Amino acid sequence: MQIIEGGVTSPAGFKATSTAAGIKYQGRTDMAMVYSEVPCECAGTFTSNIVKAACVMWDKEIVESGRKMQAVVVNSGIANACTGQEGYDACRKTAEAVNEALGVEADTVAVASTGVIGMQLPVEKLAAGVKAMVPELADSKEAGTAASKAIMTTDTINKEIAVTFEAGGKTVTLGGMSKGSGMIHPNMCTMLAFLGTDLAISKDLLQEALSEVVKDSFNMITVDGDTSTNDTLLCMANGLAENSEITEKNEDYEAFKEALTYVCTTLAKKMAADGEGASKLFEAQVVHAKSKEDARTLSRAIVGSNLSKAAIFGCDANFGRFLCAMGYSGADFDQNDVELFFKSANGTLQVFDHGTPLAFDEDKALAIMKADAVTVFVDMHEGEGEATAWGCDLTYDYVKINADYRS
Amino acid sequence: MQIIEGGVTSPAGFKATSTAAGIKYQGRTDMAMVYSEVPCECAGTFTSNIVKAACVMWDKEIVESGRKMQAVVVNSGIANACTGQEGYDACRKTAEAVNEALGVEADTVAVASTGVIGMQLPVEKLAAGVKAMVPELADSKEAGTAASKAIMTTDTINKEIAVTFEAGGKTVTLGGMSKGSGMIHPNMCTMLAFLGTDLAISKDLLQEALSEVVKDSFNMITVDGDTSTNDTLLCMANGLAENSEITEKNEDYEAFKEALTYVCTTLAKKMAADGEGASKLFEAQVVHAKSKEDARTLSRAIVGSNLSKAAIFGCDANFGRFLCAMGYSGADFDQNDVELFFKSANGTLQVFDHGTPLAFDEDKALAIMKADAVTVFVDMHEGEGEATAWGCDLTYDYVKINADYRS
Repeated sequence: MQIIEGGVTSPAGFKATSTAAGIKYQGRTDMAMVYSEVPCECAGTFTSNIVKAACVMWDKEIVESGRKMQAVVVNSGIANACTGQEGYDACRKTAEAVNEALGVEADTVAVASTGVIGMQLPVEKLAAGVKAMVPELADSKEAGTAASKAIMTTDTINKEIAVTFEAGGKTVTLGGMSKGSGMIHPNMCTMLAFLGTDLAISKDLLQEALSEVVKDSFNMITVDGDTSTNDTLLCMANGLAENSEITEKNEDYEAFKEALTYVCTTLAKKMAADGEGASKLFEAQVVHAKSKEDARTLSRAIVGSNLSKAAIFGCDANFGRFLCAMGYSGADFDQNDVELFFKSANGTLQVFDHGTPLAFDEDKALAIMKADAVTVFVDMHEGEGEATAWGCDLTYDYVKINADYRS
Repeated sequence: MQIIEGGVTSPAGFKATSTAAGIKYQGRTDMAMVYSEVPCECAGTFTSNIVKAACVMWDKEIVESGRKMQAVVVNSGIANACTGQEGYDACRKTAEAVNEALGVEADTVAVASTGVIGMQLPVEKLAAGVKAMVPELADSKEAGTAASKAIMTTDTINKEIAVTFEAGGKTVTLGGMSKGSGMIHPNMCTMLAFLGTDLAISKDLLQEALSEVVKDSFNMITVDGDTSTNDTLLCMANGLAENSEITEKNEDYEAFKEALTYVCTTLAKKMAADGEGASKLFEAQVVHAKSKEDARTLSRAIVGSNLSKAAIFGCDANFGRFLCAMGYSGADFDQNDVELFFKSANGTLQVFDHGTPLAFDEDKALAIMKADAVTVFVDMHEGEGEATAWGCDLTYDYVKINADYRS
């Protein structure tokens, strides 16, 4: 596998663009479109929140029906959640606008939204946005970057990644973009992510790979514990790399899964580090837990605790808060088995050893915690489960951003 | 039932006091003691965190053994959690100090701690504190108030309450105090609460009443989603009111339960309103949910969401965040059945009606949300379950307090 410069337009046949449709923001792009020259097999995972946005219901139907997918239209102004029938109709009308402008079947057009919940979308602005975007669709790197910027809300940086790998003697490309900064919490985390690949693969295996990879990537990040109504991850595969189609779990499938894992983990970590108000990436790595699921639960509890996150912001090696979060996570363990360390580019420091706090050098602790990325490393000494979760610190800016987000 | 001025020293035979033992804070009291002239039946509920502080394990043993309880010693500097055998020995030594100074059996002395996790207690300072406190024990209202102040950590106000009620022709008094401001989240919330009553009641019924009442009072508050290692609620009943002992669920039992509910709910709401950095009390009232448990789950999710809490701080009627939190709570419902209102002393405003957002007057919404206490009222229209949960807003000061709590 090779990391290349690029994003969602890197695989063969994928185009993208963006426009300023004036849906909520003024003076910046707020709509994006991704399009494949040929219809794609598609897979998706969606929010587990039972209050699902209209667009989530629309996209789930495409993915679950077995239909192909050929385009995705995104807006970053209004979430189109808690909007009843009128909200669902807005999805249909957006897809119909793509059909009119581009000839693509409306029921192969996914739509995604992020922004304020409980407001109706201005359908005429969306349709005008689609009409403006279609002639601008391009397969350049710049077009992909423009799309990745247009889907941002409170994100401070756009998020893209692309890789190549070998399958059946052909070079295959996988690229994608994501947005997400607040309302970020597993199952799915609050985020939109769109991946494209020119791989030829059966729909079932595409979905299986995506569903498996999401568990250790997007579902392992948290910013604020709030699971959005709009989480959407879509992966489209158009087959233009001309490898012989993957229909069983062979070597090619494993190569794809490795690439997909790298792409999803990279985008997930970028979202965690860019969490609303975040000043640093906060990672929790748990090893030797009783099970994989316990390791996931423990690591997510550590990065999800408000008190842990505030301690990371304050560069305070207040390790009791991490043990406390592990204790209420729901995973079972004995604190007398546990070792806990702080790690960063500035060093490693053990602070807790099998039930007993260690005296440690506060200056060394401070130096470690001042890094841009801080890891809490926990050895449970109870089994073989391991997992890593990512989050960010809790800062004044998080409060500031969210106390007046709507206005 | 009558509300009276007073607290833990109001019931007959109860004394209290405090001292500045210099455990963590300098220049303020940081140890308190509550003592009953005669041994008490006792009941308790404790943190559900599996990482339990040494003092929690000590007190649980007293409550579960069936032994009587005659005194409680509290310190508010160091939590004595994650401290191994040395931490447990500190509990025993504190109880032994009470035995030496007061003649009370060491195994009837409860100990409680709140403060930094992962540090050892200075046992000699605790013992000196006990020795200093014993001659000062008094049954005055002032002594109870002094104790309620000494157990505070980041609390900004002390929390006391007392009531009288009739049982078996006698006037019975129930009084108590609590502390809690951060690490506040159900089952148990992070808090210490000590109740005393001169009621005569069997241990089993005392425990049953307490366990039931806690579900709709202390377990319905949240400040930050972090369940402490140290939560402790103790209730001591010394029988000095000379009512004939309650041994069955008769009228007297119901009168006691009513008084206990009032006392626990009042202390719980005081803790929520005084949450770290809080500028207002945030209440969620859910009616007509499918079940009582669903109503509890939904109301707790609303007041527990960081995004909801930030909206309350910003006086932003961003109701989608409340529906979003309900959606990921785990309770099952159909958003098309839901009505949502904002309420406060300044009025009532409906914003969501059976799946559809309502256009509303932003000025009226702002006026309602600017009150010191704001309620989100949700009618689920799906059953008979109802519950109320309490929390507070998420503010800059919460971050400030917790980014450098340890130092």
